[in-house]
Amino acid sequence: MRLTDIYWHLRSDITRIEKEIEKTIDAQHPILQEASSHLLKAGGKRIRPVFVLLSAQFGNYDLEKIKHVAVPLELIHMGSLVHDDVIDDAELRRGKKTIKSKWDNRVAMYTGDFIFAKAVETATYSNEPKLHRILSDAMVEMCIGEVEQIKYQYDSNQHFRVYLRRIKRKTALLIAVSCQLGAMVSGATEEHQRLLKNYGYNLGMAFQITDDILDFVGTEKELGKPAGSDLLQGNVTLPALYAMQQSQTLRQTIEAYLNKNGLNFIDMHGTIEKVKQTDAIANSKKVADLYIQKALQALEALPDTQAKHSLTQIAHYIGDRKF
Amino acid sequence: MRLTDIYWHLRSDITRIEKEIEKTIDAQHPILQEASSHLLKAGGKRIRPVFVLLSAQFGNYDLEKIKHVAVPLELIHMGSLVHDDVIDDAELRRGKKTIKSKWDNRVAMYTGDFIFAKAVETATYSNEPKLHRILSDAMVEMCIGEVEQIKYQYDSNQHFRVYLRRIKRKTALLIAVSCQLGAMVSGATEEHQRLLKNYGYNLGMAFQITDDILDFVGTEKELGKPAGSDLLQGNVTLPALYAMQQSQTLRQTIEAYLNKNGLNFIDMHGTIEKVKQTDAIANSKKVADLYIQKALQALEALPDTQAKHSLTQIAHYIGDRKF
Repeated sequence: MRLTDIYWHLRSDITRIEKEIEKTIDAQHPILQEASSHLLKAGGKRIRPVFVLLSAQFGNYDLEKIKHVAVPLELIHMGSLVHDDVIDDAELRRGKKTIKSKWDNRVAMYTGDFIFAKAVETATYSNEPKLHRILSDAMVEMCIGEVEQIKYQYDSNQHFRVYLRRIKRKTALLIAVSCQLGAMVSGATEEHQRLLKNYGYNLGMAFQITDDILDFVGTEKELGKPAGSDLLQGNVTLPALYAMQQSQTLRQTIEAYLNKNGLNFIDMHGTIEKVKQTDAIANSKKVADLYIQKALQALEALPDTQAKHSLTQIAHYIGDRKF
Repeated sequence: MRLTDIYWHLRSDITRIEKEIEKTIDAQHPILQEASSHLLKAGGKRIRPVFVLLSAQFGNYDLEKIKHVAVPLELIHMGSLVHDDVIDDAELRRGKKTIKSKWDNRVAMYTGDFIFAKAVETATYSNEPKLHRILSDAMVEMCIGEVEQIKYQYDSNQHFRVYLRRIKRKTALLIAVSCQLGAMVSGATEEHQRLLKNYGYNLGMAFQITDDILDFVGTEKELGKPAGSDLLQGNVTLPALYAMQQSQTLRQTIEAYLNKNGLNFIDMHGTIEKVKQTDAIANSKKVADLYIQKALQALEALPDTQAKHSLTQIAHYIGDRKF
């Protein structure tokens, strides 16, 4: 089963949201226009809009209201991808050229700024005043997460706690907010908003951990980038932390690479193989599963609806996802 | 007379706004904290808050309401400076090291993002719903202006119209919005809001043109950067456009430099001297004066108050400003 099969019944609404996104970034300026729609065409799972739509079904589902949150949330995600690519010097994303490689870093930076500003602008069309603060708070936390990532890049001695705090800010919060705001704009009860936010947070954590696992076990074809990219770029993720904890040899190999800020050679293929021989992947998987369980618990108190069923299936899917 | 003398009576309120800005960017994160306050300490004229405060005096002046606009507007300006420095590869701003030279481009980009997000967050504390849209629209236009600047960098054949549209987006709109929103949050009449916005727009245009003139006629000490920096970076401003229009020799010199994307030598000192021998500076000054006149006209219909007097003085000051 593919992720999209789970929310197949939402496909027409998702298409409408994508059309709205397209309309929103239909810039008054050719370069921004081209850069943004290039990014849009690169696709993506659109999981944030999906969570908004599904959470909105716990209230009065009105796409005209929902789009004022679904569009900004996907735009904030898109803007952060553009700025990440500037930072990562990424040439490819999902197999497609990144904006910074197709144009340059300067265009990429301002395209990101433009997309962020458009996200905020779109949100202003919602009459929910609390919404703006929740959205901007999430953006603030995301920025802090990005700087955290820079601070701890090539740092082989970071604590597991530091990693978890980073992925919370970089990934989990925005998914939590997607669920929370979807419920809020549709007038779901405070309690349902809280539960859905809780679900989103735990699912987001599991989602990122799984992503970080796949960077070790996935194939280049599946990932759209070489396996081990995170480590190569000095991003120390959960599997690497477990591997270093378990194997002295791996600690030495990885530290030797990180402490030289990635300037010396690392046999990534060999390293990945060694990591797989440890329990690093299994242990990381356990942590992901723990978050999946918490996400499922959050759903329990919610009414049994098609939406709840889909959110449950997504949680299971993330838990088992292979790519 | 210095600019600050004109709004001397506002000094305590401006200090309070600066304290608020400090509090706002008092990040949960050391690097952002340091980077932001480094930027804050670099100072600046704070003209955007000044325009907010002065315009607010045409309604019920309440600093508690005003700060929710004054702070975001200065933050948006600060954030754009940080991102400009990434683009310009500037090592110094106002004689102080820039964030990107003190840290690196990545930190600079995310510090800018963080400051923008904080600006939006602060604005959410205002109960004026229209305010958010006006603010985000201004941010959108600013981004388009930035990309326009990249598009026309090293372009010797750009029309005067292109230059004016660019400085409108990059500078004038944010000052127009400062006046408009200052009046709005204090409950000034729609008509007064319109007039003050109009004043701000024209004053902003004059302000930027004067800035671009000073880049040719100012000293390194006055500018805090070498004279001719704009042209050296391929930014074709009004004096350069007039000079190329008037002198074939200058057109050849400047084109030779621009068409090589600034990669070949230009005797900037000699070029500046030649520009001064043309009417380029005088003609640019005429355009600036035209905008000053329009700004003063906008003030005419406003009640004769201390605030109107200050805005008038500021317009005259910008018209005569030497640095």
